[in-house]
Amino acid sequence: MANPKIVLAYSGGLDTSVAIKWLQNKGYDVVACCLDVGEGKDLDFIKEKAITVGAVSSYVIDAKDEFAEEYALISLQAHTLYEQKYPLVSALSRPLIAKKLVEVAEAENAVAVAHGCTGKGNDQVRFEVSIKALNPDLEVLAPVREWKWSREEEIEYAQENGIPVPIGLASPYSIDQNLWGRANECGILEDPWAAPPEDAYELTTALENTPDTPDVVEIGFEQGVPVTLDGKSYKLAELILELNGIAGKHGVGRIDHVENRLVGIKSREVYEAPAAMTLIKAHKELEDITLVKDVAHFKPVIEKKLSELIYDGLWFSPLRDALVAFLAETQKTVTGTVRVKFFKGHAIVEGRKSEYSLYDEKLATYTKEDEFDHDAAVGFIKIFGLPTAVNSMVNNKKVTV
Amino acid sequence: MANPKIVLAYSGGLDTSVAIKWLQNKGYDVVACCLDVGEGKDLDFIKEKAITVGAVSSYVIDAKDEFAEEYALISLQAHTLYEQKYPLVSALSRPLIAKKLVEVAEAENAVAVAHGCTGKGNDQVRFEVSIKALNPDLEVLAPVREWKWSREEEIEYAQENGIPVPIGLASPYSIDQNLWGRANECGILEDPWAAPPEDAYELTTALENTPDTPDVVEIGFEQGVPVTLDGKSYKLAELILELNGIAGKHGVGRIDHVENRLVGIKSREVYEAPAAMTLIKAHKELEDITLVKDVAHFKPVIEKKLSELIYDGLWFSPLRDALVAFLAETQKTVTGTVRVKFFKGHAIVEGRKSEYSLYDEKLATYTKEDEFDHDAAVGFIKIFGLPTAVNSMVNNKKVTV
Amino acid sequence: MANPKIVLAYSGGLDTSVAIKWLQNKGYDVVACCLDVGEGKDLDFIKEKAITVGAVSSYVIDAKDEFAEEYALISLQAHTLYEQKYPLVSALSRPLIAKKLVEVAEAENAVAVAHGCTGKGNDQVRFEVSIKALNPDLEVLAPVREWKWSREEEIEYAQENGIPVPIGLASPYSIDQNLWGRANECGILEDPWAAPPEDAYELTTALENTPDTPDVVEIGFEQGVPVTLDGKSYKLAELILELNGIAGKHGVGRIDHVENRLVGIKSREVYEAPAAMTLIKAHKELEDITLVKDVAHFKPVIEKKLSELIYDGLWFSPLRDALVAFLAETQKTVTGTVRVKFFKGHAIVEGRKSEYSLYDEKLATYTKEDEFDHDAAVGFIKIFGLPTAVNSMVNNKKVTV
Amino acid sequence: MANPKIVLAYSGGLDTSVAIKWLQNKGYDVVACCLDVGEGKDLDFIKEKAITVGAVSSYVIDAKDEFAEEYALISLQAHTLYEQKYPLVSALSRPLIAKKLVEVAEAENAVAVAHGCTGKGNDQVRFEVSIKALNPDLEVLAPVREWKWSREEEIEYAQENGIPVPIGLASPYSIDQNLWGRANECGILEDPWAAPPEDAYELTTALENTPDTPDVVEIGFEQGVPVTLDGKSYKLAELILELNGIAGKHGVGRIDHVENRLVGIKSREVYEAPAAMTLIKAHKELEDITLVKDVAHFKPVIEKKLSELIYDGLWFSPLRDALVAFLAETQKTVTGTVRVKFFKGHAIVEGRKSEYSLYDEKLATYTKEDEFDHDAAVGFIKIFGLPTAVNSMVNNKKVTV
Repeated sequence: MANPKIVLAYSGGLDTSVAIKWLQNKGYDVVACCLDVGEGKDLDFIKEKAITVGAVSSYVIDAKDEFAEEYALISLQAHTLYEQKYPLVSALSRPLIAKKLVEVAEAENAVAVAHGCTGKGNDQVRFEVSIKALNPDLEVLAPVREWKWSREEEIEYAQENGIPVPIGLASPYSIDQNLWGRANECGILEDPWAAPPEDAYELTTALENTPDTPDVVEIGFEQGVPVTLDGKSYKLAELILELNGIAGKHGVGRIDHVENRLVGIKSREVYEAPAAMTLIKAHKELEDITLVKDVAHFKPVIEKKLSELIYDGLWFSPLRDALVAFLAETQKTVTGTVRVKFFKGHAIVEGRKSEYSLYDEKLATYTKEDEFDHDAAVGFIKIFGLPTAVNSMVNNKKVTV
Repeated sequence: MANPKIVLAYSGGLDTSVAIKWLQNKGYDVVACCLDVGEGKDLDFIKEKAITVGAVSSYVIDAKDEFAEEYALISLQAHTLYEQKYPLVSALSRPLIAKKLVEVAEAENAVAVAHGCTGKGNDQVRFEVSIKALNPDLEVLAPVREWKWSREEEIEYAQENGIPVPIGLASPYSIDQNLWGRANECGILEDPWAAPPEDAYELTTALENTPDTPDVVEIGFEQGVPVTLDGKSYKLAELILELNGIAGKHGVGRIDHVENRLVGIKSREVYEAPAAMTLIKAHKELEDITLVKDVAHFKPVIEKKLSELIYDGLWFSPLRDALVAFLAETQKTVTGTVRVKFFKGHAIVEGRKSEYSLYDEKLATYTKEDEFDHDAAVGFIKIFGLPTAVNSMVNNKKVTV
Repeated sequence: MANPKIVLAYSGGLDTSVAIKWLQNKGYDVVACCLDVGEGKDLDFIKEKAITVGAVSSYVIDAKDEFAEEYALISLQAHTLYEQKYPLVSALSRPLIAKKLVEVAEAENAVAVAHGCTGKGNDQVRFEVSIKALNPDLEVLAPVREWKWSREEEIEYAQENGIPVPIGLASPYSIDQNLWGRANECGILEDPWAAPPEDAYELTTALENTPDTPDVVEIGFEQGVPVTLDGKSYKLAELILELNGIAGKHGVGRIDHVENRLVGIKSREVYEAPAAMTLIKAHKELEDITLVKDVAHFKPVIEKKLSELIYDGLWFSPLRDALVAFLAETQKTVTGTVRVKFFKGHAIVEGRKSEYSLYDEKLATYTKEDEFDHDAAVGFIKIFGLPTAVNSMVNNKKVTV
Repeated sequence: MANPKIVLAYSGGLDTSVAIKWLQNKGYDVVACCLDVGEGKDLDFIKEKAITVGAVSSYVIDAKDEFAEEYALISLQAHTLYEQKYPLVSALSRPLIAKKLVEVAEAENAVAVAHGCTGKGNDQVRFEVSIKALNPDLEVLAPVREWKWSREEEIEYAQENGIPVPIGLASPYSIDQNLWGRANECGILEDPWAAPPEDAYELTTALENTPDTPDVVEIGFEQGVPVTLDGKSYKLAELILELNGIAGKHGVGRIDHVENRLVGIKSREVYEAPAAMTLIKAHKELEDITLVKDVAHFKPVIEKKLSELIYDGLWFSPLRDALVAFLAETQKTVTGTVRVKFFKGHAIVEGRKSEYSLYDEKLATYTKEDEFDHDAAVGFIKIFGLPTAVNSMVNNKKVTV
């Protein structure tokens, strides 16, 4: 009788290579599955390595466009900054990876899926909740969390099982990267009083080394989607990559964050998100002229909930669908152009314009003459201030403040 | 019989100088009242000019400390950024000015107070609502809003009444300044596609001219109040002025904002707030290590409400008191030191430490061994993900997404 | 040359009959427009009376179905209780009336519309903001607010202009009614210490006189829409009328509310909403078993905003569209049956069931065995309680509470 | 050497009696601790039974006043209805019981505390998080969750260890009761389509049997605290008990709720809370006349968070302290009298009055004449509706809805 199949989220690194063998030893046929969400790895090498190490088959899936258009775009339009800082880099890719794992598992008639997360992070939660949401019948294994080996024990197991172990000192950091940014933790970063060393960064130039001449780019949006740079059309994934280049060159998008993990601890993370931070800023400025005040003031409530929900791994949940329905409705007039100057770590929005602009000099003048008279202001203030005035009349003498 | 007295918020400029005469002509004895909230004016000159122009008496009140300790501090601790951008510079000083006007009015037995706002801005609302909240029996006059003169008509009236008119072209801008920052509107700024010209700024160096070597400052906080710079104690007002100098030199705190006014229109404003933006950022980073997650995630709800309420002129209102009671409770452990590097328009928080830190490497290790086991994560995920899993079991086949 | 046309919201009462003449005297040709939103008036009589009094033409529009399906339904699904009490009876009909006035105005090439509200209520705001939202070019007149007559002056004007004046004492109350309920203010009700007298009510039996035997009704919902009573299908407007009868007979739906008006004052209102209160309660109970926890806990945030926005007359606004998009998304699985017992002023939900129920005894048992183990609870508590525990370790000794 | 001590939350029932022996067998000296929070048990009997069964000492603590004044009062003032229905009966007593257990443990130099909860409910979380918050060094044991016995196994163990087993059929229900109400689950109640049988209730008369004459009571509040009934002063605990009697007699306060537990499942619970529901309703009505609109509209945000936080067992947390600081600030003027009519399951508020009332007929008239003119309304509407009007001008023709 055939072995049961398991689909493993495979990165090509030591942990998931060892996991292939470990799952085999548990009696599974392992299907390796590597997703390209824009981290720029050598995918052919990874595909082959999985087979070499013992996988019965090996998938490499280019999910860059899907990631950009269905995941990063939500983050952009909702300005999802967890705790006002972190643009949800890894939190956005996890549900997409989970979705692909489930699709492969269903196509391959697998009984289980596996991921390489430990027991201390957010990603284990994001993977497992997403997988259960998509297919509650699939079992989920977490080899690294289960085997609880030290680094030495893991290397020993690798050597015993013929798995190549990288020579030289491993990076002191733990890194995850995709189109939307790069996350870095561990090592010296664990001391929140210490400044992150330069080698913690890769996508962004150090401020000291940024060019002395700015670049200026006009970003064109259609209904909340960035579609052009300086008038040239791009698919979203490519536009993001292009902006990562320009903004990164000028040192834009470094984030140093002590954050509250879902699993109850604080951790210090260093992020780089040149395109993400630029686009969120530019999009917000376009909304500033195109959204009516009530929407502009309530949308942040939706944004905050969506940020926390995505961070917490609840992408595939009915609440996300409802929040995104709200979001989509707000984007209908977010069309226009934003001029951004990249210089010395800044993405400065210098100008914004839109045919849907609710700020319009001509209209303002028209409005001033036709709508905005002084009696209106007087009447407005009387009624706007009435509750406070009545409160004072009743309470000023009675309540000792 | 004596004329009724009116207390006028006096700035020394043309509008309020003309207003002295205009109010006189209405039959009032005018008491001029000029507040120093840190804008750096020549106060002796202003005091005397009021008398020269016709005021029966003239007050100049140094309110810098009160402004810093009771107004700016709330903005700092609550990170009050209206529409996520504007640190409420003018919105913070208006209630304090209103309070002083009412105090003077009560001391002088005046029947009314007056301010120099037009009918199109937020400040008229802030003044009038605040005054009514503090003393609903005082009448409020707004000469500029009432006379509705063109610039030419105003100058003619000034000349006829012996009021000195400034020679040369007036500034194209309308400016308000205090310790917490500087606000600028009008002129070329009215085109939101145009970049603000350099002469729109005064407190901050242009990025192109900022120093090539950074300054690093350690800011010490006690229960949410910044009390030291590099270990040296300062009164809050002085600490803010000191930081305005350092941060401004490095170009920190420029804000270009198309905002939704309370009176229903969008306007484009340019702000400079070097100390404010630096302190808000540093304070947030200290909170990131000292506030427990639930507080960190709910405090922004309070902050948003407080920002909007202050912007809308409701400083003297029961809701403000209740929001500030919440705020005060959260600051008890916000004590510690934040290291800030000023460079090329950035106030980069490089490190943060606190004896109340909930992030603590030693504790983390202790926690890891004692509290953080893998079974805990497994159990947590099962229960945390249960509602989503149950929803999938029931609905995945039924609902067509 | 022809007179300009104005479309008047006409009720058949004294105020709007006088307004026809008053507008004529202002030089307008008056088009009367009476909407039937379920208040049960004699519409033929009203239609003719308008012509008799002087209107150039007279519309009577049956808008009951549109009101039920596009206005009341939103209130039902969003449980819109303003200040947790008032189901927005009049606030829901105003935008629909405004919409019809604008449609008639556009069809008739009118230059203006008029309504009969005074200057102290919410409805003037709701009408005018709605009309401006739908057609900002139409002028809006408010004759009653403008003429500022006493009752006597109005009667005198009526008599002089041949407008029939009702004989006998007018009702002491000011009443508005539609399918979704009945609103009553003025008279003895203005004393909030006085109990509303029996004659303030019309749709509901006094508790003392309600039947001694209950009625039990099963209400069937499809995707959030009530579609059957005891298995029999109804159009929504008819279902509401039917329930108004049954629930009203048992005294369900009396509300006595001191509320905060949009125009800054508190007012005491008495409402009757037998069907509305029954349906909102039943719908909530169906949601209790069909909505996943996260949606159930966030939907009230949307509900509160929507309630306030509708109360404030902002029905035709982009924010309403976005909130309703959220709402619609949540209703996909709100399908099932709720059993309601009407008795002594109560609409008691005795039972609820749904094929989409996330509470399912069989599933619960399954879940218990398969998912719900004690280790899970232990792990969950450890991680869920970790921030609090860490906070205690750090702060219990340091902070003096 | 002495055995380590453990403090057990002891109820006198079978589970915790068996737990005494079970903990003894684990090597502990068991200190029994029974709290009286108003459930009306025979405390002398319980105190003695603990010793009989094997406890080394036995505490009975009367915590009724502390429960009323420091726990129920918060629930009352914050109208804490979890999911808009459940007044947090058990959720309120758990932190107080935890606090007393910790106090006894510290006084007795115990190393651990224990509770009798299973692994499926909320109370285990509330106990353990509270205990860790108060003293993170104490170990917490949950014998019932740990031994995982069937009913039969438990009885067998009891009989083997000389623990009295109640004769006859046990109640089909699982019940918890205190001053603030009574909670009931299990048995027939697990079918949410079935109406709760009469024997599920104990504090409230069935509607069919309620008196045919109402009782009317005037409840006097001082700064948010109910202090008198019909003018007679009561300590809060006694006032609640008194109201439980009157309101219960009239059938007030039955709640049938399918709720979302913290541990991820939905459960059906039946509550009775005659005094709680009456007081919350009366207090809300007093706030309706004494709170200024902005406070009235924001306080529900605080209430919702506080309800969820208390339900989730986070009573002893910094966020609770901050929320309560907000709450306390709002109660300063909530002083006055509310007249309540108890009849046929209703607690009808017929009248409310307060010296701090912001609704005041005399003031209203004054306000009408002095403040409320028609021009004010016209100006208010112009500015209030301006953003919507501008939006229409720009977008009505462009955006296809």
